Amino acid sequence: MPKLHWEDFQPGTVAVYGPRLVTREEIVAFAAEFDPQPMHLDEMAGSATLLGGLGASGWHTCCLMMRIIADGFLLNSTSMGAPGMEEVRWLAPLRPGTNIRVRSTVLDTRASKSRPEMGLAKMSFEVLDDKGAVLMAATTTFMLGRRQPGAGA
Amino acid sequence: MPKLHWEDFQPGTVAVYGPRLVTREEIVAFAAEFDPQPMHLDEMAGSATLLGGLGASGWHTCCLMMRIIADGFLLNSTSMGAPGMEEVRWLAPLRPGTNIRVRSTVLDTRASKSRPEMGLAKMSFEVLDDKGAVLMAATTTFMLGRRQPGAGA
Repeated sequence: MPKLHWEDFQPGTVAVYGPRLVTREEIVAFAAEFDPQPMHLDEMAGSATLLGGLGASGWHTCCLMMRIIADGFLLNSTSMGAPGMEEVRWLAPLRPGTNIRVRSTVLDTRASKSRPEMGLAKMSFEVLDDKGAVLMAATTTFMLGRRQPGAGA
Repeated sequence: MPKLHWEDFQPGTVAVYGPRLVTREEIVAFAAEFDPQPMHLDEMAGSATLLGGLGASGWHTCCLMMRIIADGFLLNSTSMGAPGMEEVRWLAPLRPGTNIRVRSTVLDTRASKSRPEMGLAKMSFEVLDDKGAVLMAATTTFMLGRRQPGAGA
């Protein structure tokens, strides 16, 4: 498969990556390491919270999203990374046993003003559960190498 | 130590938590699991990228920040979680061997309109290196239990 360049990211393009099964064991292990709030560690504790039961740390969902998009397209692209996340919204709990997918949408692209070899692609990512419900939504802008440096946007 | 409630979060309050040493081993292990881009796995590969060497995944920095603020104050509070992140900016590479700290600032607080038992606290978090340089900045709004439900904001 030829490597994806900035020119290959067309606004409006939608793709879905995954699935990836998320187990109780990994939810609890991640929380124990990075986010040991009770609702991410224990069903009983979680049931007394807004999550209404055991749910993954929102950061865990972010990390699983990252892995899915890395395997889905990013590792086969000229990505130079991203300067941050413009928004992350945790909309519904990620429960043990869920098969998640990530739906990506290219929102906008533009050439870099300062770097002729670089283009920017603003993308949204939605983490979906088995039924297609959106558990998390995030927006970021990737820096990508161009196939034709310096050409017009 | 008495549990922190919403009323204890006063705009303008600054605190610093940590330090936490970040090792090469954990940077590479995290990247291998969640963000296997070459610049997070290998010095040589990283040196050819914008990171200019091996640097932690931005998501790893987020997760380390989460753990530091959990231990720093969140686990000893009435926090009910956060609906997302309003912004995350990865400003400089997190290198192996760095002792990171997190500087928190309470930006704003307000009572919840719909839940008299809840208040909101908008906070910024900056991940600092040994010299105080800001490696990452993030903003979020926590939902916190109130000591006096329903009282005016």
